[in-house]
Amino acid sequence: MVTMEKVVSLCKGRGFIFPGSDIYGGLANTWDYGPLGVEFINNIKKAWWKKFVQQNPNNVGMESALLMNPQVWVASGHVGGFSDPLIDCKECKSRFRADKLIEDYYHNLGEDIVGVDGWTNEELKGFIDEKNIKCPDCKKHNYTDIRQFNLMFKTFQGVTEDSKSEIFLRPETAQGIFINFKNIARSCRQKVPFGIAQIGKSFRNEITPGNFIFRTREFEQMELEFFCKPGEDLEWFDYWKNFCHKWLLDLGLTSENVRLRDHDAEELSHYSNATTDIEFKFPFGWGELWGIADRTDFDLKQHQEHSGKDLTYQDPQTNEKYLPYVIEPSVGVGRLALAFLVNGYQEEELEKDTRVVLKLHPALAPFKAAILPLSKKLSDDAIKVYNSLSEKFMVDFDDAGSIGKRYRRHDEVGTPYCITFDFDSLEDKSVTIRDRDTMEQHRIAIDELEAFLEGKVKF
Amino acid sequence: MVTMEKVVSLCKGRGFIFPGSDIYGGLANTWDYGPLGVEFINNIKKAWWKKFVQQNPNNVGMESALLMNPQVWVASGHVGGFSDPLIDCKECKSRFRADKLIEDYYHNLGEDIVGVDGWTNEELKGFIDEKNIKCPDCKKHNYTDIRQFNLMFKTFQGVTEDSKSEIFLRPETAQGIFINFKNIARSCRQKVPFGIAQIGKSFRNEITPGNFIFRTREFEQMELEFFCKPGEDLEWFDYWKNFCHKWLLDLGLTSENVRLRDHDAEELSHYSNATTDIEFKFPFGWGELWGIADRTDFDLKQHQEHSGKDLTYQDPQTNEKYLPYVIEPSVGVGRLALAFLVNGYQEEELEKDTRVVLKLHPALAPFKAAILPLSKKLSDDAIKVYNSLSEKFMVDFDDAGSIGKRYRRHDEVGTPYCITFDFDSLEDKSVTIRDRDTMEQHRIAIDELEAFLEGKVKF
Repeated sequence: MVTMEKVVSLCKGRGFIFPGSDIYGGLANTWDYGPLGVEFINNIKKAWWKKFVQQNPNNVGMESALLMNPQVWVASGHVGGFSDPLIDCKECKSRFRADKLIEDYYHNLGEDIVGVDGWTNEELKGFIDEKNIKCPDCKKHNYTDIRQFNLMFKTFQGVTEDSKSEIFLRPETAQGIFINFKNIARSCRQKVPFGIAQIGKSFRNEITPGNFIFRTREFEQMELEFFCKPGEDLEWFDYWKNFCHKWLLDLGLTSENVRLRDHDAEELSHYSNATTDIEFKFPFGWGELWGIADRTDFDLKQHQEHSGKDLTYQDPQTNEKYLPYVIEPSVGVGRLALAFLVNGYQEEELEKDTRVVLKLHPALAPFKAAILPLSKKLSDDAIKVYNSLSEKFMVDFDDAGSIGKRYRRHDEVGTPYCITFDFDSLEDKSVTIRDRDTMEQHRIAIDELEAFLEGKVKF
Repeated sequence: MVTMEKVVSLCKGRGFIFPGSDIYGGLANTWDYGPLGVEFINNIKKAWWKKFVQQNPNNVGMESALLMNPQVWVASGHVGGFSDPLIDCKECKSRFRADKLIEDYYHNLGEDIVGVDGWTNEELKGFIDEKNIKCPDCKKHNYTDIRQFNLMFKTFQGVTEDSKSEIFLRPETAQGIFINFKNIARSCRQKVPFGIAQIGKSFRNEITPGNFIFRTREFEQMELEFFCKPGEDLEWFDYWKNFCHKWLLDLGLTSENVRLRDHDAEELSHYSNATTDIEFKFPFGWGELWGIADRTDFDLKQHQEHSGKDLTYQDPQTNEKYLPYVIEPSVGVGRLALAFLVNGYQEEELEKDTRVVLKLHPALAPFKAAILPLSKKLSDDAIKVYNSLSEKFMVDFDDAGSIGKRYRRHDEVGTPYCITFDFDSLEDKSVTIRDRDTMEQHRIAIDELEAFLEGKVKF
C-alpha cells in the first residue's frame, strides 16, 4: 500500500524532493526539487503547455511579473478579502484555522462536512463552542476569538519601508493575465473566444501548510483564463472541465482515483456561475487537484472599474461590445506531482523479492531511458549511445553495480526503458531494451532506438 | 540602426514584452512577457538546459525554493554585505547609487572608469566632492553622506510580523545549489567533477534599475555551480568560459558584439581565483551578460561553518577528503533575451520599402513557422497542416490580410519559415515555404515539412 511516508522517503532518497534549507534545519514546509524532481515537474509543465498552448489554436501563453502594482490586489479583492479565520488556543498557544479545526473534528469522527466555506467568524466560533471541540495539541477547550488573517506575503520595493512602497507577492497567477487581456488581444490579434495561459510561482502565507508538497506557502500554478462570449460560458465550462479530466487520465492517473465534484449553490463564490473541483484520492483523503470555475466577467469588471480603462471587447463581425466571461482551469504543479507520484508508486511481489516501481507516463518520467554498459570495459562504447540519445531525450548513463541493481534503481525512479550495452553490442550494433512495467526484454538495433523512444514518450 | 526605442516598441507592439501592471500605470521597472515573449524566453531556457544539463553527462539540474532559511544568507554574506552605496541629493531629494553617479559622470565625458567596485563610502564621497559631480536631476552639488542599503527584499512568513519570522526573497539562485550539494551528491551518486544547474527567479531591490529588461528588480537567473578538485579549478574555469562563449555564438550572437573581460586583481572578489565577464555591445554600451567566476571553496566553507554540517567530499578512489572548488557561470535570462533581440533586429532596404526582420536563431524564435492559407476558403485545409506541425513545434496559423503583410508580420517577430497553402496545395499536397532571411521560396511536399523544420530548428 502506498503511504505518504513511502513516497516522501523515495523522493528524498532518490533525488526527487528534499526538505528546503535542509542543512539549516529546514524552513517550515519548503521543498527543493532535486535532479530527478526538476525533470519530473518540468515534464508536467511541458505536457500542460503542449496541450493548453502549443496544440491549441485558440490559446496563447504569457508570463507576468511576480511583483505587481498593489492596485491589482485591491481590484481583485485580495487586499480586502483574501484571508483565513485564525484562532489560538489560550492554553498552549497553538494556532489554527478555525474552519480546518471543524473539518478535522469531523474527519476524525469519520464523517465529511461540506459548506464551512461560507460561514462567518461568529458561526465558526459558535460551532466550535457548541461541539466543545478540543485543541488538537493540548486537548483543552479554551480559545481566543476568531480574527481574519490576510494570506498575502508583503514586501517593500524601493529604499524605504513605508506603506507607500509596500507590495505583495502574488497569491495567484490569474490576475497577471486579466490585467494583460487588452495588451494581448491587441498585439496578438486574438479574437474571442480565446485563452491566455500562464505558469508561475505564487505565494500564500498559509496558517497550516502541510501534507508534503500538497499545500505549501510557495507553490507553482498553471492557469488558463479562457475568454468567451457571455451566454456561451457554460458550454466552454463543460469543454474545459472535460479537457482537464482527459489530460489527467491520458497521463495515466487511474480513473478510480479521480472524481469531479461540483460546487453547490452554498459553496459557489458569489461571482461564479459554476465551479467543479477535480479531486484525487491521496493517502490522506480526497484533495482538490484542479479547480475549474466560470468566473463570469467579475475580474475584468473589477479591473475596468479600478483602472478606469475600457476593457470591453468589440466583436469584429457584429461590432457588439461586451466584457467577456471567463472560464478558469487552475491547477498546482506540486499537487499534480504528488498525485502522479502516489498514483504511480507500486510495490510488486516478484519470485524472489519485492520491487518498487514508479509507473509514470513516459512523457513525465525524469529519464526516458538509462544506458547500462554490462561491464565498465564497455563504458567508452556505451557512452556513444548516451551521447546520441541525449541529443533528443533526458537519459541517464549508469555503470555502477550489477545489472539487476541498476534495473531496480531505475524502476524506482520511473525510467521506462533500460538499455543494456553488452559485448555482443560491439559486433551486432544492437542492445537489449527492458520495459519497466512488463520487465520484458528484447533486442533492438542501436540506430532504431531514437524512433522507438520517440514513439513511446509521445504525449 | 538598432536603438533601444525600436526594440522596446517592437516588443510592446508585437506581444513580446509589455510594461508590468500597465493598466494601473505600471510598477517601476517590472515587465510582463506576452505570448511571443514567453515562447522566446522559454526557448532561451531550453537551449541552456539542453547544453548545460541534458547533453552534459557531468551535470544535473535542480530547483530550490525561493524562500529559504535566513541563515543561508547570513552564511553567504548577503545579510552582512549585499548592499549598494546610497546617496541622496539634499536639494531635490533624488536618490542615487554613489558608484553609478561616478560611472555616469565619466560616461558623459566619453571615458570609461574601472575599479569603483572596491571603493569605500569615504572614497566614493571624496571623489564626488573633489570632482564636484552635479546631481543629474537638479544640477546642484549638495549631497548627504553615503550609507549602505541592503538589496535583499524582506518578507514575513507565518502569522506574526516580527524579526523571528523575517525572511528574504533570494537575491541569487546559487545558494540554493550550495546548500543541496550533499543531498544531491549522495542521492544521485555524483562524483566530482560534477555540476548542478538551476533556473529561477531572483530579486534585488536595485536603487536604479533600468535599460528595459537589462536590470530589473525581479529577474530570472540560469546558474551552474561546477564542483571540482582544488588545483583543477583554473582548467575548468577556462573550460566553462569557452563553453559559454561558444553557446552564445552558436545561437547567433555576432562575434563583434561579444567580448570577454577578465577581472584584474583589484576588481576580483576576495575569494575568487579568477573571474571573466562576457559582455555584449548593447545600444547603451557594453554590458555584462555572463559572469564566470572561480569561487574556490568559499561558499561550501561558509555553509559548513554556519550549518555545522560536514560538507566535504570524499574521493571514492583515493579516499581523500576535501571541500571542492566551484566554477560558477551565471547569466540572466532577461539580459540574454535583450542581447538576442538587439543582435537580431535589422532594417533591410528592399526595392520598394524597408522591412524589419528579427534574425533570431530558429531554436529561439517564438514561432518555428507560420501557416498562411492564400485564401480564407483554404483555411479548413490549411489548419490540418497547422494541426500536424503543432504536434512538434510552436507554429502560428495566420489567415488575415495579404500574403505580403503576413510575411512582414512574421519577419518582424522572427518566424524563420512562412508556409503558404494555396489552391494547388489541394492537388499536389505541397506548399510554398519562404525563408525569413533570404526571402527565397521553394515548393515542398507537406509530408516533408516536419523533417525539414526539425533539421532547421535543431540546436
